[in-house]
Amino acid sequence: MDIIKVSANSRTSAVAGAIAGVIREHKHAEVQAIGAGAVNQAVKALVLATGYLKNDSIDIVCVPEFVDVEIDTKVRTAIKMVIDPIDKIS
Amino acid sequence: MDIIKVSANSRTSAVAGAIAGVIREHKHAEVQAIGAGAVNQAVKALVLATGYLKNDSIDIVCVPEFVDVEIDTKVRTAIKMVIDPIDKIS
Repeated sequence: MDIIKVSANSRTSAVAGAIAGVIREHKHAEVQAIGAGAVNQAVKALVLATGYLKNDSIDIVCVPEFVDVEIDTKVRTAIKMVIDPIDKIS
Repeated sequence: MDIIKVSANSRTSAVAGAIAGVIREHKHAEVQAIGAGAVNQAVKALVLATGYLKNDSIDIVCVPEFVDVEIDTKVRTAIKMVIDPIDKIS
């Protein structure tokens, strides 16, 4: 399963659709963002995806964590948002 | 219980300490942020708070939502992150 990578220029509705699709298929999704603009888009997309999935009676929750990623030989700290249906983690 | 309001200039460790304290006392916390810089600080603080609380064997999850807040007679859309221990929501 691929990580959904979000940038500051990502469209929130597109990211939200990706999150909802991955959750429906895999019951687990991971979203990665680097920088304030990207993290903001990721969180907004997560709000939208939560609404989409609520229509399918799927309640999701998120646990953010730091991850180090290498970009052009430089190590940067990304935020990874781990998303699961409530009934899976409980 | 007060909402923890985060700005782009908030120190993540201070916000994380506030989140952890409110969760320990109330088993529920709400963090509000307006704008990309503030949302980024809020998410980083949540990562830190997750680590603090894990030391107390408390696993927290978050559900972000949009809320309209009025600031200087203008309505702005904020992100509210609702934080609960896993064992409470399950």
